[in-house]
This record gives sequence, C-alpha cells and structure tokens, in this order.
Amino acid sequence: MLDQIRIVLSHTSHPGNIGSVARAMKTMGLGQLYLVNPVSFPHQKADELASNAIDVLQNAVVCSTLEEAVGDCHLVVGTSTRVRSIPWPLSSPREMAEKIASGPGEAKIAIIFGRENSGMTNDELQRCHQHINIPANPVYSSLNLAAAVQIIAYECRIASLNEVVREEWDNRYATADEMENLFNHLQAVLVEVNFLKESTPRKLMTRLRRLFLRAKPDEMEVSILRGVLTAIQQSKK
Amino acid sequence: MLDQIRIVLSHTSHPGNIGSVARAMKTMGLGQLYLVNPVSFPHQKADELASNAIDVLQNAVVCSTLEEAVGDCHLVVGTSTRVRSIPWPLSSPREMAEKIASGPGEAKIAIIFGRENSGMTNDELQRCHQHINIPANPVYSSLNLAAAVQIIAYECRIASLNEVVREEWDNRYATADEMENLFNHLQAVLVEVNFLKESTPRKLMTRLRRLFLRAKPDEMEVSILRGVLTAIQQSKK
Repeated sequence: MLDQIRIVLSHTSHPGNIGSVARAMKTMGLGQLYLVNPVSFPHQKADELASNAIDVLQNAVVCSTLEEAVGDCHLVVGTSTRVRSIPWPLSSPREMAEKIASGPGEAKIAIIFGRENSGMTNDELQRCHQHINIPANPVYSSLNLAAAVQIIAYECRIASLNEVVREEWDNRYATADEMENLFNHLQAVLVEVNFLKESTPRKLMTRLRRLFLRAKPDEMEVSILRGVLTAIQQSKK
Repeated sequence: MLDQIRIVLSHTSHPGNIGSVARAMKTMGLGQLYLVNPVSFPHQKADELASNAIDVLQNAVVCSTLEEAVGDCHLVVGTSTRVRSIPWPLSSPREMAEKIASGPGEAKIAIIFGRENSGMTNDELQRCHQHINIPANPVYSSLNLAAAVQIIAYECRIASLNEVVREEWDNRYATADEMENLFNHLQAVLVEVNFLKESTPRKLMTRLRRLFLRAKPDEMEVSILRGVLTAIQQSKK
C-alpha cells in the first residue's frame, strides 16, 4: 500500500522543509515525493535536513503544475484547515488511510500539502476527491509542514500494517486527468445547451465537480458520461 | 440515531419471522418496521413470536411497493449475500452503522431485508445506495431473517452509543423518490439524444444508477442535474 502513495508539496517556500518532509516520509516507509514549483530545489538546506533520506530527495519529481503531479492518480487527497463556503467530503487522517488500505491495490494516490503559510488554494482543493483535516488543538493548530506529513504518513503506515480486505470493483477508477477532461467536456456542453451563462451562479461548476469527484467514477462510467455528452452535442446539429 | 432507522422487510413469507424481527429490533432499541407485501400480516404467529415487542408490530407500516416504504429515505441500504454481475458499493455491517452514526442527524435510513429464501431481487438491490453483507461462515452462511436483523440492529446500537462527530453538509440529501425521478428524467433524455437505443448494452442504466446513487447527491445537486436535463431537452426544440 505504501508504494501506491505519493506526497505532493505545492509551492513550498523553504527548501529545509522539503528535506524534513523527505525524512518524515522515509521513517514511515513512503518514498515518492513530488514537488510542484518549489521556490528552491535542489538546495543544500534540503539535503541537510533530509539526513539519511537523501534518496527520497534524489528521486523527487519536480513539476511545474499540480496537474502534472497528480494527473495519473486515481485518488487525490487534499489537506486543509480552512473552512470553505462549499463543504467537500472530509475525513480524518485515519479514515483516509483506512480507505486507501481497503481500496484497489493498483490505484495511485496523491496526498497534497499546500504552501507553508496559506495552505492549499481553492483551485487546488477543488481538484481533490476528498479533503483531510488533522484534528489539532483548536487554540494552536499550526503544525509545520513536515509535522503534518509525519502524522499523515504515520496513519498510512499503521493502516498498511493491518490486514484488510481490498475492495473489488469491475473497472479501474478514472485518473485525475480523465476527470478534468470530463469536466471540460461537461462545461462545454452546458454552455452549448444554454445552461451555463453569465448569469449562472459561479459555484455551479464547483458543485458539479464536487458531485462527480465524490462519486469517484471508474473509467467505464467516465466513458459513458463522455458518450452522453457527445450524443447531446451531435443531437443539436 | 436509532430513531432514524427503519427496518424494511420485503415479501416476507412467514408471519412468525415478522414477529421475531420485531423482537430483535426492540432489544436493540429500533422501533420502525415497514412490511412490503407480507404474505400474512397481521397474524397470531407474529404476535406470539414478538413477545413483548408487540408494540413494534402494532406500529408496523404495511406497504404494497418498496418505493412506498423507502421513498422518503435519504439512505437506502440493501442486505445481500449473492455476488452480482455489476458490483455495488459494499460495506460490513459495522462500517454501515458507523456511517449512519456520522451522517446527518435528520437523515432517514432504510435497511432492507429480502425474501427468506431468495433474498433481495436485482431490482430491489439497484434501488440502494449501498449494500451490506454479514461476514458469515462461508461453509454455512444461512442466517435466518430475524438473526440477520439482530446482528444489523446490534451494530446500529453499538454505533449509536459511541460519540461521533456528525457530518456537516450544506443541503439535505436527496430522497429515494427524488433519485427515481432523476433516473426517469435521465433515461428520457438519453432516448431523446439517441444515446439509449435498442442496441445499447442493457446494463447502461444500471451503471448510471450505481454512479449517481454512490455519489448520494444532495437536493441542490439533483436540482442542478434536472436543470441540465431540461436545458438539453429545450435546446433540441
């Protein structure tokens, strides 16, 4: 299970934090680190703080966009502390880890951590199937980046040690890329049938994203939906 | 939480079983019994076996269709032992009970039990958001109806005793009736845009049902989807 998981750090400011994250990951058996637009990487400070997890840094994948980092993943999890205007499916780290452990063994999972100060952006959060929230002390909930990764990685490790029954499903889940293509197609059709207009509440697409991401469609279901959208477009010609 | 749950028995053959179910329910604090087309009810044998749970029988609601019994429910759970050609989201009784305990407190939940010999029909199972399966001994898994209800009711009770955080959501979940109306509308549109034809694989609507039931849309999401369907229909005129 631990091989299925990648830790994605978005726009990390301090290279030392990247090193500390690599160390936290390796202590729990995680090895895949993706960095989206890090401010400074590679960097001596990162190497120093990684200590004997230098291999995690050496194998880290640097990406210029979040899509590049999570596009081939079947489950995208965001970490969030802020309350949003539109709630998203939210789990505890333990629930999330148990879900991964009981999900299909071939699924690729991304767990995203945002900027040190501001966390994940709304746009980033809306690309996630689900959010997780570390239940920290409400009067001082400010964990540093590596501490947050440590807790999440720990829960993943504990879940991986338990024997669980893996879910059986007939098709593989859609990837993040396939979901984005679906949303683009859906939006185009909604414009063509005059459902999506200037006057439409701005949150419409967000609500549709949330609905379909929550369902976590498999590849056949996405094909069916794409087929429906194409049929709608053809029927208007 | 226990007040949210109704036990639905579909086409029960033996009135004694209905009485035993009433007793099993009451021992665990459940009170709402719905009977879909029972072969014989009320019946002296049911009263006898209900023992001091006669009030559960007296308050039982007799319905002529499953829709009548579950139409106003926000979560419909089916009990199943058979393996289906299209898998459906499946939980253990414990997971299901914990999900109910952490769901919205105002949601109405139906847990359906099928005929004594053959269990739930495929049509009944396809009306469920999720299925549960009691992990019985594989070499002898034949629990009687009241025993199955007893285990499920026990898990609900245990879950109700734990303190859990109730899920927060911005809109109430759609009812089973609202979901059926959505499926009827969707099917009509798929015919109109020539996506659903004689040649379409028969399982298409089943797969779409599974997808949307799995997402458990809220009422606003269902309104949006209905609006999209109406816009598609109008754009073709």
